[in-house]
Amino acid sequence: MEQNRILASYYIETAYPLEHAAEVMAGEQSTGTFISVPGETPELQEMHGARVVSITELESVDHPSLPGAKVPKQSGAGAGYRRAIVVLSFPLDNVGPSLPNLMSTVAGNLYELGEFSGLRLIDLELPDAFANKYPGPQFGIEGTRTLSGVHDRPLIGTIIKPSIGLHTEDYGPLVRQLAEAGIDFIKDDELCANPAFAPLEQRVRVVMDEINRVADRTGKKVMYAFNITGDIDELRRNHDLVVKAGGTCVMACVNSLGFAGTAYLRSFSELPIHGHRTQWGAMSRSPLLGMSFTVFQKLCRLAGVDHLHTNGLNNKFSEDNATVARAIQDCMKPFLGGYPVMPVLSSAQWAGTAVPTYEAVQTTDVIMVAGGGVLAHPGGIAAGVRSVRQGWEAAVQGIPLADYAERHEELRQAIRTFSK
Amino acid sequence: MEQNRILASYYIETAYPLEHAAEVMAGEQSTGTFISVPGETPELQEMHGARVVSITELESVDHPSLPGAKVPKQSGAGAGYRRAIVVLSFPLDNVGPSLPNLMSTVAGNLYELGEFSGLRLIDLELPDAFANKYPGPQFGIEGTRTLSGVHDRPLIGTIIKPSIGLHTEDYGPLVRQLAEAGIDFIKDDELCANPAFAPLEQRVRVVMDEINRVADRTGKKVMYAFNITGDIDELRRNHDLVVKAGGTCVMACVNSLGFAGTAYLRSFSELPIHGHRTQWGAMSRSPLLGMSFTVFQKLCRLAGVDHLHTNGLNNKFSEDNATVARAIQDCMKPFLGGYPVMPVLSSAQWAGTAVPTYEAVQTTDVIMVAGGGVLAHPGGIAAGVRSVRQGWEAAVQGIPLADYAERHEELRQAIRTFSK
Repeated sequence: MEQNRILASYYIETAYPLEHAAEVMAGEQSTGTFISVPGETPELQEMHGARVVSITELESVDHPSLPGAKVPKQSGAGAGYRRAIVVLSFPLDNVGPSLPNLMSTVAGNLYELGEFSGLRLIDLELPDAFANKYPGPQFGIEGTRTLSGVHDRPLIGTIIKPSIGLHTEDYGPLVRQLAEAGIDFIKDDELCANPAFAPLEQRVRVVMDEINRVADRTGKKVMYAFNITGDIDELRRNHDLVVKAGGTCVMACVNSLGFAGTAYLRSFSELPIHGHRTQWGAMSRSPLLGMSFTVFQKLCRLAGVDHLHTNGLNNKFSEDNATVARAIQDCMKPFLGGYPVMPVLSSAQWAGTAVPTYEAVQTTDVIMVAGGGVLAHPGGIAAGVRSVRQGWEAAVQGIPLADYAERHEELRQAIRTFSK
Repeated sequence: MEQNRILASYYIETAYPLEHAAEVMAGEQSTGTFISVPGETPELQEMHGARVVSITELESVDHPSLPGAKVPKQSGAGAGYRRAIVVLSFPLDNVGPSLPNLMSTVAGNLYELGEFSGLRLIDLELPDAFANKYPGPQFGIEGTRTLSGVHDRPLIGTIIKPSIGLHTEDYGPLVRQLAEAGIDFIKDDELCANPAFAPLEQRVRVVMDEINRVADRTGKKVMYAFNITGDIDELRRNHDLVVKAGGTCVMACVNSLGFAGTAYLRSFSELPIHGHRTQWGAMSRSPLLGMSFTVFQKLCRLAGVDHLHTNGLNNKFSEDNATVARAIQDCMKPFLGGYPVMPVLSSAQWAGTAVPTYEAVQTTDVIMVAGGGVLAHPGGIAAGVRSVRQGWEAAVQGIPLADYAERHEELRQAIRTFSK
């Protein structure tokens, strides 16, 4: 791509001619304004205007997807709303390699424009200048595997439950049990950051005591993602608590911190950043608003997360399997020449979910976070962990789950308990 | 309100019984999970569970507003989707007075829940602990009036146009002209932060030279909101540049910085923070998703902005006048016992817009940013500024605009040029 321009793709819906609508987008987000002003010379427009790269017309609909859209005065009755993919390019010079200012430019006021009854940012290509400014994931997949000692299969993880309300003293026995069960990864819930009844400082001490003790004995050190989300001026202290206790991962709620806050954390982090996508639905669930996960995961990788929640197949949320599979595949594609990120699959995951997951994405470079699928296994937590590993073994070897379960008791129990 | 709980109101749409749907929300965002886990004791639920405070049933619809929603197995055909207002309360202790963690709790995963075909956060009440942690607007309306020397009428402002592309040397003559024309307020466009052709450092120097020179002569110092949006570690330097040059305002794109980033800026800012809401449409334009402006403006005030963009009446965007008037009124209501913020009205504003604005909101405690309405006035910029003042004089005195224009040439010209 041109190294001096930013490319942004949008899925739009408008009652206006597509060429006009695209020009409105380009104008609003660069040199144009509602009225012509003296300084807007042809030279300035040429140098600093956004350009319409392409318009691909798609289907038409009778009713607007979003309210507040204007219709052109001359439009005939029932002319409808056209949908299209519009690609714009913006001069890098307008923005500079700045993540916050990129957002003001490629998203900005576009969503409010009256000419549109739908507008979604669906892709983004950035020049190398961004890579020079933002180093991206520091550990990625390889670094995570090295720190956790797990190779050639997914990291099997779980999440501390109940999500919120456990007191500091509850963490010791629970984490010991999980670590002794051979789990690879544990995470705090996104709801639990630094509550008075389980302050981060105490939680880190208690949890790492247990993890280090088991590691000394077994040689396997569980990766625990401590939720260090907080105010900007708390991030360094929170991070340092984890480092000093020998922790190997910090968790950040990307949308609660902002991309800028996450990039700031990356600027000093000595540990992998586990990126939680809480609030993601607010920017994605309306099909013609917000942004696609394709864009979101690029922004998260630019900000420097090493792990990123993608949801899991057969989840209990509103996203279907095709959407989740695309999200995982998005994470697998190189961005800016690399920026490897490890997808985190969660929500109703258990041994059986491994099969459709592997079929859909053909990779084991994921973290599978199974709550009930591990904790509620009738054979206990260790059996729960083994069952999820067995599910992945069956998936990778292409052996039907039921066949594999004949020789694997824990998988058999899991199927009996969790399959519907 | 109870000082140990956070109240959040939601506008929801669901195919499930409302009581069940509300319990799912409360469970997901506090102690619950999809399966029952050992630690979720009745005591823990009582202490840390979110509670359903009220459910107010509203209209029903036949079709889901958002895709991906589940329907209960036992529901009859055509049972439809119920809408309601659900109020939840969360224990303050779960979250602590933390703006980022508040977002993970009151918004969080709710938008993705399969039980809902629509979910929007529409109000938020916070205990005083948040006020103790976040000082809020430092200058507000009074501080802004003192710094700008404008009392008993709106601040009349304009925005540097073209939005992006002017080079450093273009700023001098333009700002001098505006300052000499008696304008109260000037702002950078949200697209222009720190571009190579007009770096913030140079722009601040050139602009403040002109403003200070005019102030020395006339005693009137224009308030200029420099767009200092950037990476977290650039904010202090950017802010200090403005302070050192004698500037009186910094501008931050709240959604590009994040609430956390904005609160961080507030923690050291010595100047009013002009809050731009770019990207606002992404979280608001789908009526059953995201959040209402009522919530957004509270979060912005908590983060500490002194000015906040509300859009203007008769704007060129998709929001109607009722929505804009409510946004301005939201800003006028005390929050946490005060936290005064000055609404910023922009988009297609001119002298004539003063009349419906004052009728709707009955206040002059606003900043009216008129681009074309000032810059494209046929009598020149000074006449443009005078015309907007005259529009407000007529509005406040309840004199029809045409009558007032008979004795005011600039207003007469403005009406001829801008009224439709």
